[in-house]
Amino acid sequence: DDVEHQTKNMDDPYANEPKRHPALKPTSQKPFNAEPPAALLVANFHTPNELFYVRNHLPVPEVDEKDYSLTLEGEGVKTLTLTLDELKKKFPKYKLSAAIQCAGNRRSELSKFEGLDLDATGSPYGASVPAERALDPKSEVLLAYEMNGEPLSRDHGFPVRVIIPGVVGARSVKWLSNIILSKEESTSHWQQNDYKGFCPSVDWDTVDFKSAPAIQELPVMSLICEPGNGWRVKAKDGKIAVKGYAWSGGGRKIVRVDVTGDQGKTWHVAKLQQEDKKHGRHWAWTLWTVEIPVDPKGKQTEIWAKAVDSSYNTQPESSAHIWNLRGVLSNAYHKVIVNLIQ
Amino acid sequence: DDVEHQTKNMDDPYANEPKRHPALKPTSQKPFNAEPPAALLVANFHTPNELFYVRNHLPVPEVDEKDYSLTLEGEGVKTLTLTLDELKKKFPKYKLSAAIQCAGNRRSELSKFEGLDLDATGSPYGASVPAERALDPKSEVLLAYEMNGEPLSRDHGFPVRVIIPGVVGARSVKWLSNIILSKEESTSHWQQNDYKGFCPSVDWDTVDFKSAPAIQELPVMSLICEPGNGWRVKAKDGKIAVKGYAWSGGGRKIVRVDVTGDQGKTWHVAKLQQEDKKHGRHWAWTLWTVEIPVDPKGKQTEIWAKAVDSSYNTQPESSAHIWNLRGVLSNAYHKVIVNLIQ
Ligand SMILES: [Mo]
Ligand SMILES: [Mo]
Repeated sequence: DDVEHQTKNMDDPYANEPKRHPALKPTSQKPFNAEPPAALLVANFHTPNELFYVRNHLPVPEVDEKDYSLTLEGEGVKTLTLTLDELKKKFPKYKLSAAIQCAGNRRSELSKFEGLDLDATGSPYGASVPAERALDPKSEVLLAYEMNGEPLSRDHGFPVRVIIPGVVGARSVKWLSNIILSKEESTSHWQQNDYKGFCPSVDWDTVDFKSAPAIQELPVMSLICEPGNGWRVKAKDGKIAVKGYAWSGGGRKIVRVDVTGDQGKTWHVAKLQQEDKKHGRHWAWTLWTVEIPVDPKGKQTEIWAKAVDSSYNTQPESSAHIWNLRGVLSNAYHKVIVNLIQ
Repeated sequence: DDVEHQTKNMDDPYANEPKRHPALKPTSQKPFNAEPPAALLVANFHTPNELFYVRNHLPVPEVDEKDYSLTLEGEGVKTLTLTLDELKKKFPKYKLSAAIQCAGNRRSELSKFEGLDLDATGSPYGASVPAERALDPKSEVLLAYEMNGEPLSRDHGFPVRVIIPGVVGARSVKWLSNIILSKEESTSHWQQNDYKGFCPSVDWDTVDFKSAPAIQELPVMSLICEPGNGWRVKAKDGKIAVKGYAWSGGGRKIVRVDVTGDQGKTWHVAKLQQEDKKHGRHWAWTLWTVEIPVDPKGKQTEIWAKAVDSSYNTQPESSAHIWNLRGVLSNAYHKVIVNLIQ
């Protein structure tokens, strides 16, 4: 039995996964996908590395930094290969705060067809962003080897990952080996046949993946982190405190978060905590807090939150009309039901 | 009587308004504001000048082009004054297609407080855009003296107006006299105390205009132009044709328009007509057409349209939760009820 078990593991491409923080709640083990509890998230403006959500599509590669090299190549580009040491020494170190937003965060709310798993084909992961975005002098792209001052962990792309702030996390390729300037998008499964949005009436029989653009910038969204769904809360002076985060793609600033405890009859404007950044470079999330009045005789209250960004885009009210077969882009109002202690 | 009438007119700052096309439907006479019928709008990709909507805040100035000059000034700027002739000869002529989107287009749908008119104080109209936007080499700003190949009309800013595509029309100042680079926003009424969005629960007693940013980029929107509300239409093979336009701020491309005739139980993807532009420079509108099935026994059908842009932002379902005291930013699903001829 012991021998068989060992043999199995050696055949298992997931045999050498890194250890993860016990607070991470896995949504899948192979590949490993996990999120921290929402209430832990808003405890810090900068999420501690070990609590950062993990979104992998394939086994985590084991890369020896001595063997590591990055190749830049493509149309009109003189091919350049850099070791990790050269990358660190030849280029100035640059820091930025960015929220990495998964297209499928909050996917569980749109999970109708989620039984179909990712089609991991074994080909290397690849992703593309428009050259206009990657080379935009007003924007930022990072080849990151540190996260919160520490070397990247294996789960987050050791030794080097791309950070393209304001763009869906799926393009911020981890364990980066090649950068290619090209007239064609990556042919990878995740660029071509995943991470795209469709009309709610398109199903797996009628979907034409070529008809939709790959997700790049994400829409405006917000999340209620405290209280969580089903929590028991006690009002103080007739009010309860609500906390969460909001974020928008393309570096658009969050300009307002509205919260309601009465299905939108009255909305309350939250207090925002955010970085002071230049126009169009609001890559980090915005934390928010607000106190909302609750019915003194009520047993339950349903809390809704919606954010508004600097282009005054806001969230759709419900998932009904934004549902899509891949379950991505789930940015409807976040709704949480809590029990009131009298 | 005749003399009195004439005297009145001479005192009237609106005595010398230009003539307008009879198809324009005025929503106000002084200042003159008017829109063409929606069905005429989608007849052309480029709206004929005389049918272009007019949105004025004050009387239309009479400018003699011989006397005209434009002054550029401000912090770190050597003051420069240009005549119209110099403007035309010293700079290369540049063309672009852009939809000018008024913050209050479709305002009538959100008109609860519209009885309060614009506070025209008599000060000159002024507006600001962030320097990052105005000077962005990846973006475009035009000092326009022609429109569809003809000199600008008086209503549209003769002799020179700014065109800041992707940004609310209120910043595309007409009858342009000064461009000022400054650390402070324009103190004009329209920059400070209008063209801002607020939480639905903020009213005229509680509004703090300083709390909201001036509208720059607008959110994604769409309009059904044909059939119009109340039209009688006959289905052909069980279907009716629907036409309209869609647009988004910030140069974001319209990637999809979904249309439903059954309250969203089934959505139909429209065919799009749009310019082929670089990423982030989709300033023009997108025209769309779709055929949707209708109930063969139905007397009426309600049609809804919603657009999705390249950041996958979409429209809110109803005005209920985006209502604001200035009636701007009305980008909920457009809904039209038509009568079916059996
Ligand atoms: Mo993702
Ligand atoms: Mo406007």
